[in-house]
Amino acid sequence: MGIDLTGTVPLTAAVVLVGNEILSGRTLDKNLQSIALALGERGISVVAARVIPDDAGVIRDTINELRAVTDFVFTTGGIGPTHDDITAENVAAAFGVELHTHPVAERLLLAYFEERGVEPNEARMRMARVPTGAELIDNPVSVAPGFRMDNVYVMAGVPKIMQAMLDNILPTLPSAPQLQSITVICNLPEGTLAQPLEELQNDFPMVDIGSYPGNSAAGAQKGYRVALVARAREQDSLRAVEKALVDMVARLGGAQLDA
Amino acid sequence: MGIDLTGTVPLTAAVVLVGNEILSGRTLDKNLQSIALALGERGISVVAARVIPDDAGVIRDTINELRAVTDFVFTTGGIGPTHDDITAENVAAAFGVELHTHPVAERLLLAYFEERGVEPNEARMRMARVPTGAELIDNPVSVAPGFRMDNVYVMAGVPKIMQAMLDNILPTLPSAPQLQSITVICNLPEGTLAQPLEELQNDFPMVDIGSYPGNSAAGAQKGYRVALVARAREQDSLRAVEKALVDMVARLGGAQLDA
Repeated sequence: MGIDLTGTVPLTAAVVLVGNEILSGRTLDKNLQSIALALGERGISVVAARVIPDDAGVIRDTINELRAVTDFVFTTGGIGPTHDDITAENVAAAFGVELHTHPVAERLLLAYFEERGVEPNEARMRMARVPTGAELIDNPVSVAPGFRMDNVYVMAGVPKIMQAMLDNILPTLPSAPQLQSITVICNLPEGTLAQPLEELQNDFPMVDIGSYPGNSAAGAQKGYRVALVARAREQDSLRAVEKALVDMVARLGGAQLDA
Repeated sequence: MGIDLTGTVPLTAAVVLVGNEILSGRTLDKNLQSIALALGERGISVVAARVIPDDAGVIRDTINELRAVTDFVFTTGGIGPTHDDITAENVAAAFGVELHTHPVAERLLLAYFEERGVEPNEARMRMARVPTGAELIDNPVSVAPGFRMDNVYVMAGVPKIMQAMLDNILPTLPSAPQLQSITVICNLPEGTLAQPLEELQNDFPMVDIGSYPGNSAAGAQKGYRVALVARAREQDSLRAVEKALVDMVARLGGAQLDA
């Protein structure tokens, strides 16, 4: 996969959410956050995320574009039994291979359907089909598996099933030094913080410093709440930035707030 | 803008969420859903969404890629006063123009800061800068405006402010015949529905039929809950599909569930 397993090079990932229901606003996606947090704990940074329609060409092109530029691609959605589930066949097409019925997936599904007295019809058995060369990703919730094809991990869209698949994937991934973060929350407006914050960022180019305002009561000076978040792989710099942020808030006459 | 105002051609939009905090999982984005639902009511379909980092080159390239292929691009995030707010300058760069201080924005901000006894420092006054040629988007929450540059609408990331800006944009947009939708929720598993659903989709190619399973109790036949959603611009076909879906559920021995 071209990954530096020594952990000295940060690992990157892209997330592709496949589904018209997310683009229409019918469904609020929460899978991106779950995936990003879980990967972050392993030192893998999500550097791009896309929401795309259930469209053959778009799925193929997006997979091929992103798998070439990130270490891992994680997709959610479109691997069920219905006509609008077209992710598997288009991941196969992206790799230029055919879908085939995976014998292990077939056996698992047949046993599952038999146990439940459900007819193993053609639509259901489509869920045993994965690209040639793909490895299965176990689905302890509803059996129909996800799969890994090279550096592309194809998961279900239902959050509970996605999470179960992700839990099975995580131990198989390499890990990089984790991106550590510290957060200082204060009651100062961003306009007051901006200049000293920029100077601090310039002093510590290897630390990523972000400023995230929350909602404040409209027009009120009181009620400001800004989270200053610093992220880095190197502990000493991060601690120095944390101390500098605390000092900065005090120097500007502000107070720290609880998380 | 190259838009067909007669409303006979569907209008498309892309949404670009700018922010490291969404990619890291720190923040759960809800802006995409708000934007998609509001645009959907005007018959404007969101056909692509991206989450991108606070990175100059990525912002520029993403804006230029998407504004060329959709009728409208909506961005959120990165227009505050701090060093990590770099959306405005990079939208300007995407259009090959300079940022300039907009006189109306400057006047509004100066009045707002004076009223609150806040120093109009350089960082705060950066929020008056927009690309040359851009129109302001009013911000009734915290004054610092968004802007429209050609078909690109640049909004704040804080949901309350984004929503206020969006409310100001919506009446200025053309509208297409709204995509109407009907939903039939039933207690049948997708594997049972798949085949007749595909036949129905083939019979009505101008109606987009989607199948969205909810969580069901693991391994239990009971507890299935699948939403069948049909969307179309043409009422008669949609009603015919609704009737066919209801008949299909009954024929397969299922029951309809409440929303």
